[in-house]
Amino acid sequence: MSDHESPVHVLSTEECWDFLRANEFGRLAFHLAGEVHLVPINYAVDRQRLVFLTAEGDKLLGVSMNSDVAFETDLVTEERATSVVVRGSARELEGSEKYVVEQLPLRPWVNTPKYSAVAIEPVEVTGRRFDLSRPWLHDRPTGAR
Amino acid sequence: MSDHESPVHVLSTEECWDFLRANEFGRLAFHLAGEVHLVPINYAVDRQRLVFLTAEGDKLLGVSMNSDVAFETDLVTEERATSVVVRGSARELEGSEKYVVEQLPLRPWVNTPKYSAVAIEPVEVTGRRFDLSRPWLHDRPTGAR
Repeated sequence: MSDHESPVHVLSTEECWDFLRANEFGRLAFHLAGEVHLVPINYAVDRQRLVFLTAEGDKLLGVSMNSDVAFETDLVTEERATSVVVRGSARELEGSEKYVVEQLPLRPWVNTPKYSAVAIEPVEVTGRRFDLSRPWLHDRPTGAR
Repeated sequence: MSDHESPVHVLSTEECWDFLRANEFGRLAFHLAGEVHLVPINYAVDRQRLVFLTAEGDKLLGVSMNSDVAFETDLVTEERATSVVVRGSARELEGSEKYVVEQLPLRPWVNTPKYSAVAIEPVEVTGRRFDLSRPWLHDRPTGAR
């Protein structure tokens, strides 16, 4: 990286969706009684929306009272960090809508009962890639150079 | 893991802080104009609070208008996922309070200008560890057994 280049790169919408499809774990931020809450979730991409499973609880109560949510997934390697954020509207899938779940690679990591499917319809999808400058990773003796 | 054990383990407060201290990357959820927003951040633990640096922008505007925030950091390995969430109140550090930053292992990964220090005073710290059951990772021929 030259000093003249910014270390922050904005991803195109297509790159964001590629990244979303390549991952299955992220975090959901939602409103609950005027507070912001944040939980890890497994998700899958269904066309241009995200779908996740959940049991009765805060997530479902929260999105039923205020559908405004934000979702983030990221990947950090030694040289770069990539983060994609989806802001949108969440709602529980009802009746036959739920069958879409069976067609998705939605594989909960943990075998706890999860009865409800929730879809996030995006309002805004943004992504950034950061070239990492972590000099302390290179604080090693470099020999006689 | 026996079938009788829950795959979800609640971490003690001490385990949560150990985990927070062992990491430096997480995500901040905050309110902005009635919406919930979510961004990746680098952070450090300062005694019983979190500190991060930020430039002027949405994060700073958001927490100055509504200090209610949630923070999450996690680590996923093949066998388990650990996630710690801090709910609390964020405020910009002013004047001499900012000098604490120089004592912290707060190492932004990206060399973009960051002028403000923000502290998150926890209201609630919770953590969970999930024993992962990802059978598709084990969908391999097992020989003649």
